[in-house]
Amino acid sequence: MKYAMIGTWRMAQDGVVAALPSLAQGGIAGDAVEQAIMTIEDYPYFKSVGYGGLPNEHGIVEMDSAFMNGDNFQLGAVGGVRNIANPIKLSRLLSQQRVNNVLVGAGAEEFADEHLLPRKGMLSARAKKRWDKKVDQVKQGGRLTPYDGHDTVGMLALDRSGSMAVGTSTSGLFMKHAGRVGDSPLAGNGFYVDSQVGGAAATGLGEDMMKRPLCFEIVQAMERGANVQTAVDQTVYPFIEKLGQRNGQVGEFSYVAMDNQGNYAIATNVEFSFAVGNEYLKPTVYVAIPGELGKVEIKPATQAWLDAYLARVQAEVK
Amino acid sequence: MKYAMIGTWRMAQDGVVAALPSLAQGGIAGDAVEQAIMTIEDYPYFKSVGYGGLPNEHGIVEMDSAFMNGDNFQLGAVGGVRNIANPIKLSRLLSQQRVNNVLVGAGAEEFADEHLLPRKGMLSARAKKRWDKKVDQVKQGGRLTPYDGHDTVGMLALDRSGSMAVGTSTSGLFMKHAGRVGDSPLAGNGFYVDSQVGGAAATGLGEDMMKRPLCFEIVQAMERGANVQTAVDQTVYPFIEKLGQRNGQVGEFSYVAMDNQGNYAIATNVEFSFAVGNEYLKPTVYVAIPGELGKVEIKPATQAWLDAYLARVQAEVK
Repeated sequence: MKYAMIGTWRMAQDGVVAALPSLAQGGIAGDAVEQAIMTIEDYPYFKSVGYGGLPNEHGIVEMDSAFMNGDNFQLGAVGGVRNIANPIKLSRLLSQQRVNNVLVGAGAEEFADEHLLPRKGMLSARAKKRWDKKVDQVKQGGRLTPYDGHDTVGMLALDRSGSMAVGTSTSGLFMKHAGRVGDSPLAGNGFYVDSQVGGAAATGLGEDMMKRPLCFEIVQAMERGANVQTAVDQTVYPFIEKLGQRNGQVGEFSYVAMDNQGNYAIATNVEFSFAVGNEYLKPTVYVAIPGELGKVEIKPATQAWLDAYLARVQAEVK
Repeated sequence: MKYAMIGTWRMAQDGVVAALPSLAQGGIAGDAVEQAIMTIEDYPYFKSVGYGGLPNEHGIVEMDSAFMNGDNFQLGAVGGVRNIANPIKLSRLLSQQRVNNVLVGAGAEEFADEHLLPRKGMLSARAKKRWDKKVDQVKQGGRLTPYDGHDTVGMLALDRSGSMAVGTSTSGLFMKHAGRVGDSPLAGNGFYVDSQVGGAAATGLGEDMMKRPLCFEIVQAMERGANVQTAVDQTVYPFIEKLGQRNGQVGEFSYVAMDNQGNYAIATNVEFSFAVGNEYLKPTVYVAIPGELGKVEIKPATQAWLDAYLARVQAEVK
């Protein structure tokens, strides 16, 4: 059978590169998701996931993550967790418990200690520098408003046996209130998967994305017979319009979705990159540029785009 | 226009009695939900909500709550929060922020302090006695398994202007892992409301109820034209069946739902009480007894049932 992975943002590429070979060799979807996201959490230059993620208002890195098994709907998630090297590993372990699947704050860290998961100081020198700089700006008269940076890695995998899994991981909004949780650990909002249908994962402004569980709704649309492209189009854009009418403002919304044959689609209202790999396609980064709402132009990332990205994330923080 | 309230369990009756008169006088739905749930949080004899709620594995009361405004989809929620007199007040306040709408653990308490919300030690002498007793049982060789008591109050209100709101509040599973969060603060899973359509709220085993966002799906079914009874029947029971097939075990699932005309319905797979009040009906408790899956017999609670309930919740803890 087919195998495939898709993940949000350019950073997902590193994860797909790391985990796709195992799927080719018959590895299971859950392992691929965990391996892919751990790779991204460990990489110090992605400033919104795992080590090197941007801290909250107090200068502390607090992370959200989730894991869901599409065979049996088992899921685990953590919110506002500190000093855990790999939140995705913790989420997956939690998904295997009968109860207590979602843990937040200090209780989640206690569980990690009970299960001997590695602790790690997650604030990198680069992230600390960014935080110091932001605090200086605020002291010079700026209001403490959350920075509009909130890139979550969401990763879907389909394995050769037909199983699917999804995971998410993020440090959330830069300068967020202590304890703030976004959509990433919320089932239906940040992720959803059913191996008999397909899955979806989200990235964007969690506070707006949790106003309707679009990841679930995308999967439900496929369950009712829509193809993956129709499922995302008929789900995401109508709600973005409705939210604008009803609440007056709309944050960033981006989704990746994949059916249980490995067909994929995305929806976004901002420039959005994502990575895909499958039995025919080596891991590849695409860039999606939205036009009027619901129209998106998707092209493979050029070498110039990829080079500029890497230079940007690795540039010295001044 | 019409006005109406519906809430989960017998405890909801106290809330409907407290808040329905304000709706009759033209009060707004959000105020009614807040007032109703505060009444229940403050009552010391309900052992699963607010003061007097049952503690976690460490003997600490940790609470989950949410509030959603059906006009604009603004929502706020807290998870694993300690020492806050009224989590529903905190949730509603959070729903009015542009970001940082969902806060967990110590960060949520910080926000409460910043906004001068009252602190309160939430462990009652009765709850402490129950916890001590459980710990003794565990010491005598019992495994520390979460007690199957997890009654959430979920409350829906429709006001004369056609606005709807929903709120939830719970202390969650007795003896839960520190930091455990159930479905109650999760949008779509524990609650959902759209004033142009209707709303729903959930109570049961959160870990299973978050495996599909049924509160959202109930509202979505009404959005697509189903009446409220059909919406709950076609949503809840098929998933209970599917979860049994796919995961082998199914916890307790109970839902109340109401459309934007005040028509209501419930679905449950266990004996379940709820309270309703509207312009024609003074606040009334009903008891639902499930037969084969999807068949539920609903009757007004008899005086004998109500008396036995009150005697049970107020009985001395030995």
